[in-house]
Amino acid sequence: MSTEIHIPDESSAAAKGKAPLIGGLKRVKATGSKKGIAIFDFLLRLGGLSAALAAAATMGTSDETLPFFTQFFQFQASYDDLPPFQFFVIAMAIVGGYLVLSLPFSVVSIIRPNAVGPRFLLLILDTVALTLNTAASAAAAAIVYLAHNGNSSANWLAICLQFGDFCQKASGAVVASFVSVIVFVFLVVMSGLAIRKL
Amino acid sequence: MSTEIHIPDESSAAAKGKAPLIGGLKRVKATGSKKGIAIFDFLLRLGGLSAALAAAATMGTSDETLPFFTQFFQFQASYDDLPPFQFFVIAMAIVGGYLVLSLPFSVVSIIRPNAVGPRFLLLILDTVALTLNTAASAAAAAIVYLAHNGNSSANWLAICLQFGDFCQKASGAVVASFVSVIVFVFLVVMSGLAIRKL
Repeated sequence: MSTEIHIPDESSAAAKGKAPLIGGLKRVKATGSKKGIAIFDFLLRLGGLSAALAAAATMGTSDETLPFFTQFFQFQASYDDLPPFQFFVIAMAIVGGYLVLSLPFSVVSIIRPNAVGPRFLLLILDTVALTLNTAASAAAAAIVYLAHNGNSSANWLAICLQFGDFCQKASGAVVASFVSVIVFVFLVVMSGLAIRKL
Repeated sequence: MSTEIHIPDESSAAAKGKAPLIGGLKRVKATGSKKGIAIFDFLLRLGGLSAALAAAATMGTSDETLPFFTQFFQFQASYDDLPPFQFFVIAMAIVGGYLVLSLPFSVVSIIRPNAVGPRFLLLILDTVALTLNTAASAAAAAIVYLAHNGNSSANWLAICLQFGDFCQKASGAVVASFVSVIVFVFLVVMSGLAIRKL
């Protein structure tokens, strides 16, 4: 079986000496949409960066000292009393640092929309950062839930009744970190969209 | 500025009627490596499926009744006493179900290694499943840690001293779910590798 492809004369003539016309046109169009994705990628990274840093800073500064105390003891709550909150602060700081370091690669993608290398590197690192970010958010969310509601089966009391401000700050930090999780999901999908074969 | 491209006569002659020779060779090589990636993708999905189902089943069957009881109360621990464990069972069951449903798409990628559509769909859904899986694992891990160690600041006691078997099952389920998280990270990166422009 053989198929014939009819090409108009002028296009075939142009194809001999210079770049093929139809392929060139398709490439220009693809380059334009890839540039758009790269610019959106850069803006998303800036948004994710601010969310991650806000989450780390809010959790990191969350401590509360109750206004009453006994002779031997003063009631105080801080993020480093709870290991999942410590993990949260460290992980979100790492994610924020990674997002800053990824900005130059994103700029390279804007300047050279057809370069696959930097985008593929970002896809791998974004996936790892997404996992770290989600783990930190979910672990902190589990503890925040417990602090708000307690658990009668395990006989764990809700500490938010005493430490209201502390709990509110921790909850806010968890919400900010989930915003950054959503940003990462979009970044990974958009990287896939940009590097796919057209 | 104009660049000239010298093409050997036979190749140019062949290009007129049939497929271009050099491009064809490159395509065949790329197709081979893509088929390899697709087969590995399928095997990874099977591994991730067994890990996810093992995690859901282990956590879902984890309950322990202590051998002593008072007149009014019998001490019992089960996964549905703790909301993060409930979330864990549901999320891991969803992830397992998704992995089963994704197998046909993986088979399509093996049969047609150059089709970008199914792979891109899998990339998006894998990213979402990765996020769900990581969130469930991390939330359950935070509670398992608390059950093992307790927290003196919040006055939460370690319940694993009483419910040893329950804690061991829950810990095993969390470990299995993190195996499935690692599988998903590889799946996302490999999808990116397969759909990138060569």
